[in-house]
Amino acid sequence: MKISAQKFLTSGPADVVALEKSIDDGEIVAGDVLCVIGKTEGNGGSNDFTRELASYALEDLFSKKLKISKAEVRNRIIFSLSGGCEGVVTPHILVFSRSGEISKQKFPKKRLVIGSGFTRGFRPSEIGRQAQITETAFVIKQILDEMQIESVDDVHLIQMKGAVPDFSPEDAKFARKNGQSLRCDMSYSRAASALGAAIALDEVRPIELDDETVCQDWSIYSSVASASAKLGLKRTEILVFGNSNYWQGDLEINHGVLKDMLDTESVSDTLAGLGIVADNPEDPILNRIVGVFAKSEADLRGSIRGRRHTMLNDDDISDTRYSRCVLGAVIASVVNDTSIYISTRAEHHGPCGGGTLAIIARQSMQ
Amino acid sequence: MKISAQKFLTSGPADVVALEKSIDDGEIVAGDVLCVIGKTEGNGGSNDFTRELASYALEDLFSKKLKISKAEVRNRIIFSLSGGCEGVVTPHILVFSRSGEISKQKFPKKRLVIGSGFTRGFRPSEIGRQAQITETAFVIKQILDEMQIESVDDVHLIQMKGAVPDFSPEDAKFARKNGQSLRCDMSYSRAASALGAAIALDEVRPIELDDETVCQDWSIYSSVASASAKLGLKRTEILVFGNSNYWQGDLEINHGVLKDMLDTESVSDTLAGLGIVADNPEDPILNRIVGVFAKSEADLRGSIRGRRHTMLNDDDISDTRYSRCVLGAVIASVVNDTSIYISTRAEHHGPCGGGTLAIIARQSMQ
Amino acid sequence: MKISAQKFLTSGPADVVALEKSIDDGEIVAGDVLCVIGKTEGNGGSNDFTRELASYALEDLFSKKLKISKAEVRNRIIFSLSGGCEGVVTPHILVFSRSGEISKQKFPKKRLVIGSGFTRGFRPSEIGRQAQITETAFVIKQILDEMQIESVDDVHLIQMKGAVPDFSPEDAKFARKNGQSLRCDMSYSRAASALGAAIALDEVRPIELDDETVCQDWSIYSSVASASAKLGLKRTEILVFGNSNYWQGDLEINHGVLKDMLDTESVSDTLAGLGIVADNPEDPILNRIVGVFAKSEADLRGSIRGRRHTMLNDDDISDTRYSRCVLGAVIASVVNDTSIYISTRAEHHGPCGGGTLAIIARQSMQ
Amino acid sequence: MKISAQKFLTSGPADVVALEKSIDDGEIVAGDVLCVIGKTEGNGGSNDFTRELASYALEDLFSKKLKISKAEVRNRIIFSLSGGCEGVVTPHILVFSRSGEISKQKFPKKRLVIGSGFTRGFRPSEIGRQAQITETAFVIKQILDEMQIESVDDVHLIQMKGAVPDFSPEDAKFARKNGQSLRCDMSYSRAASALGAAIALDEVRPIELDDETVCQDWSIYSSVASASAKLGLKRTEILVFGNSNYWQGDLEINHGVLKDMLDTESVSDTLAGLGIVADNPEDPILNRIVGVFAKSEADLRGSIRGRRHTMLNDDDISDTRYSRCVLGAVIASVVNDTSIYISTRAEHHGPCGGGTLAIIARQSMQ
Repeated sequence: MKISAQKFLTSGPADVVALEKSIDDGEIVAGDVLCVIGKTEGNGGSNDFTRELASYALEDLFSKKLKISKAEVRNRIIFSLSGGCEGVVTPHILVFSRSGEISKQKFPKKRLVIGSGFTRGFRPSEIGRQAQITETAFVIKQILDEMQIESVDDVHLIQMKGAVPDFSPEDAKFARKNGQSLRCDMSYSRAASALGAAIALDEVRPIELDDETVCQDWSIYSSVASASAKLGLKRTEILVFGNSNYWQGDLEINHGVLKDMLDTESVSDTLAGLGIVADNPEDPILNRIVGVFAKSEADLRGSIRGRRHTMLNDDDISDTRYSRCVLGAVIASVVNDTSIYISTRAEHHGPCGGGTLAIIARQSMQ
Repeated sequence: MKISAQKFLTSGPADVVALEKSIDDGEIVAGDVLCVIGKTEGNGGSNDFTRELASYALEDLFSKKLKISKAEVRNRIIFSLSGGCEGVVTPHILVFSRSGEISKQKFPKKRLVIGSGFTRGFRPSEIGRQAQITETAFVIKQILDEMQIESVDDVHLIQMKGAVPDFSPEDAKFARKNGQSLRCDMSYSRAASALGAAIALDEVRPIELDDETVCQDWSIYSSVASASAKLGLKRTEILVFGNSNYWQGDLEINHGVLKDMLDTESVSDTLAGLGIVADNPEDPILNRIVGVFAKSEADLRGSIRGRRHTMLNDDDISDTRYSRCVLGAVIASVVNDTSIYISTRAEHHGPCGGGTLAIIARQSMQ
Repeated sequence: MKISAQKFLTSGPADVVALEKSIDDGEIVAGDVLCVIGKTEGNGGSNDFTRELASYALEDLFSKKLKISKAEVRNRIIFSLSGGCEGVVTPHILVFSRSGEISKQKFPKKRLVIGSGFTRGFRPSEIGRQAQITETAFVIKQILDEMQIESVDDVHLIQMKGAVPDFSPEDAKFARKNGQSLRCDMSYSRAASALGAAIALDEVRPIELDDETVCQDWSIYSSVASASAKLGLKRTEILVFGNSNYWQGDLEINHGVLKDMLDTESVSDTLAGLGIVADNPEDPILNRIVGVFAKSEADLRGSIRGRRHTMLNDDDISDTRYSRCVLGAVIASVVNDTSIYISTRAEHHGPCGGGTLAIIARQSMQ
Repeated sequence: MKISAQKFLTSGPADVVALEKSIDDGEIVAGDVLCVIGKTEGNGGSNDFTRELASYALEDLFSKKLKISKAEVRNRIIFSLSGGCEGVVTPHILVFSRSGEISKQKFPKKRLVIGSGFTRGFRPSEIGRQAQITETAFVIKQILDEMQIESVDDVHLIQMKGAVPDFSPEDAKFARKNGQSLRCDMSYSRAASALGAAIALDEVRPIELDDETVCQDWSIYSSVASASAKLGLKRTEILVFGNSNYWQGDLEINHGVLKDMLDTESVSDTLAGLGIVADNPEDPILNRIVGVFAKSEADLRGSIRGRRHTMLNDDDISDTRYSRCVLGAVIASVVNDTSIYISTRAEHHGPCGGGTLAIIARQSMQ
């Protein structure tokens, strides 16, 4: 089997014209599509309707092409759309497809494989606590088992949409009285998702963390997580990206850890791991880059490299918008590509003020 | 004579505590101070009062130290404060002083020299047209004559605050009737200031431009201008930064042209011209950087390196804020310093979508 | 024949649940629907995708219910969606249907009638000039002829989406050279639409205006226009709302002119004309109000009732957002209803700083 | 003794030109000035430097006029500056002076009296809890004793700047471990200030509230509080406004409770209590209004009068800016004056979604 990927720059959140043409031209087989990951040009916040508009257009398209209902489309394809194309970031979607036969035979080169799964539904009291972490880790391990991956070192990106189940004021009051105030918000859900990934990949041992670690001890983190969270979502959606000798195609993934938002060195190192030297922005070798996924946020301590930043004290513009703008610009300046997937709020994603980075590149076909 | 420079990171627009201490400690002689260039943490727009607050505090301080009135302070010291510390940019002020005796003798190394001057007052009808360009060029040449600079190649930064004189609705109507609609706005004033610099430094020959060039033909530009504009200002304030064998001290300036906002190569090249290799962000050699001045803006054509950006179509956040955020992050990632002077709106400052860049660094004292 | 109207408060731009239920329950006949006018919760600017999302959902719904393509839906039903629910304004849609037989007989009471039409396609050079004004007026008069309206005094609202055809840089240059710089923008299009309405209703005589009036002489205006404009739209879409003795139903419309954005007196007077006394916010009589349509903007002179406002000098928040917030709050405080249609940019809509207002209320059925 | 008040519309935060002229002309005696209350045109948030700029200019002025240091000015005059002039609100300052002899004799009419005082310094653990509430109530009662006020019914406005002392991460951790997580933030400080006022004026009996009431039970509130809070402030500053038969002058104050942000009825009732009928915006009687002080905020339940508002879900614009815009517009539409003091965040200030309102008007001189 092999994973294919195609990127489409969009003219707006609802633009699926080029994708539709690719399907019509036979370049993409609609039935093979696994997931669509993209950036839309909203504010990335609670009133960002560009994700909904993009989903609407994508579901419509696949419903038409696959001749199934929109609900069936949603069950079949994972849409992971993130709002916020601040600064130089170009709105785009990246479409991943799976095709071919399962192989029992190992190929010489490791190639990209994608696994997916869902946690069980969570109760509000579980979010941001051990229960969510443990279940998330458990499901990731299950997915890994199915992916024909040899080692956790071959996992480079775990993209998650974390559960934030609805709860009533009574639930909140009951929890408060029991001394376990609810943590059922997006911040804690992202944090626990990331820590679940860290446990699953043996980055952190279960004994090293407890409920108090979550959103408190930033020295404990995952190097490959990329978690968002969604209000009202009952279970966490998980996509795991790794490399495997049992998979073919021409895609390979690598990852790095960003020490801070200006860490171009880690970007270069991650490229180097894929055999790409980023010293010349006009080098066609950079065209081999298929997808860049980065997660970071404004350093919570209010400074970067020892100097004050003002992102956290600006009531006019959210620090998440600044962070995406900074991160997108810095990475684009190295990879010579502005159509990159950057995302903010990075609780336990790399060190405080830093984050996680994954890059998918084309290699020789095998 | 020599130019000295000291940078102070500020905790807010009115923070002059460290500067005052430096004066009290004798590190800076208040009477030697030529100009203060700084970034304050406002929005950089028409309702940015952080510049006014910073000016208030600085004038207050120098009035107290020099025992002269605030009006006299304003006549003596040029304050060039720019709002907008988006993203990682650290609010700061850079204080330039001049001391020593005029030298008739040439020293082996060229060192930083700063000249200053003012144009005559402009009429509203002159702004954005040949009259402003010619007068600006004329005054820059006069300043150069006084600076003991050998060649226009030794000029690396011309910092200007452009005139935008007040006018009445009748003035506007009169001009419109005469077929020469007023251009008396900040955009045209910055444009004409930059073109004046280009003429003064022989980057452009007078015959190559006319009134129609201004804000139309972006292929005509200056490589060293950094112009802002101020409503109500009658004459343009000009600061010229260059290197001269007749000046001592340990400061040298160099400049480059940014091809676009992601052009890290030009930043590296400009550093290289000062003998600084920027391949290692932890190299203490980067500490030699004293001041970085960059000017650019969101590419007016709506794309960067062939891909769409959304900075010009966002009604929530001004493209100037995005641009400063991008530019500050990209340059900081190379120079390992977030206290840099970035400024936007860059009409005829470098190519369309690009801009101008100047860096001052410490060298051996002579 | 009669016009019916139903209002649905929405939980988001794509919420058509209640409307669909009304259709399924037979309360609304999908085939009778004439137009849908609504407010969505975006920023009302160029990157407001909530209108597109709402249109997507509405077209989808009517396509399903009428079993026709989305393109056919768009040809059949006018969707007039306006972004920006600042402050207390509640997102909502108002669905107008037409049913029954054409009557040759006059009924005792005048009741609401809606007419619609389109101008011919405009050339870019016509926008904002006499050509657009004249054609707009001509089409409005044609629509009036079909509406069985006795007098222009019976017209109370002309809702228009103005053409702003695409043009090339060459078109612009050609026009500039001919001394007739293009006015092909949203501002001029709205202005000419409003002036067209003023001509059609004999508020202004053709001789009283020329090209120079447009966006210059604010004393010339319409009292019933409500024009928006859309980039890329080739022809202007027009909806005319009036009262007629030949129409039945229980709806009546009235209008007033807002002297400024705080003009509660005109709101009360307009209600009074419909027999509604607005002295008690808990009076159930206010429930008779079906739709409120207001258009205004921040006074361009920078003051209101002689005192300075800061709406035009705030680079963080657009004056259109402030204006809708002010207008929505002031009107809601009188009509005790926050689900009102407020819209900004009001060139030649009422006096400078004021605007137009129309209210539809339920009366006795006839 | 008597209180005088003069209002100055400002052209910017640092504008003290008209105030200085009034002092120079002898209309205001600098030594009599008690407090200056004003609105500046910033965002009202953590990066609003317009308050600091206004303070700078006012302290400068009074330092010059009183020939005392700025620190002495700050000890002598209370400056209560609030950022945020959204919508139609006009930036202005209101200067209150006290003059004359203390009277033991009662005058026929009650006239405005202002008292002031400070709480003791608070520990971080006391903020938002009974300790802050009790001390605030205690100090208010002390102030009342000095004001020659007969009854708590004569108190109409208690303007407070609440303490939010600095604390260390260790303080926070210690408190968390002891099961009493710190509440040392602006929200809790405002809440406890308001509840202190409620206790002092017998609106609430001490037994009716405990630590759990604060920011939880919104049915417990003050009708006259107007509290802000300031990070780093150790003690709460308190100004009490009431009417007394022992005071002369021509000013009287009255207050009302806003049921919600559209509650024009309460505005009219409060005016009526001062003998002002607000039915005609052009009635010169409205000129008698000297100061309007209102405090409210976007209803936390997400709806107003049963209909959804979107103020709490907009990541582009803070709900405090929307709230001030709404409140300012609604009140201005009744009092025909846009230079009003509106302030947001209204924890325990009137009912949830409502707020407090006080109006000072000129009456006959006695």
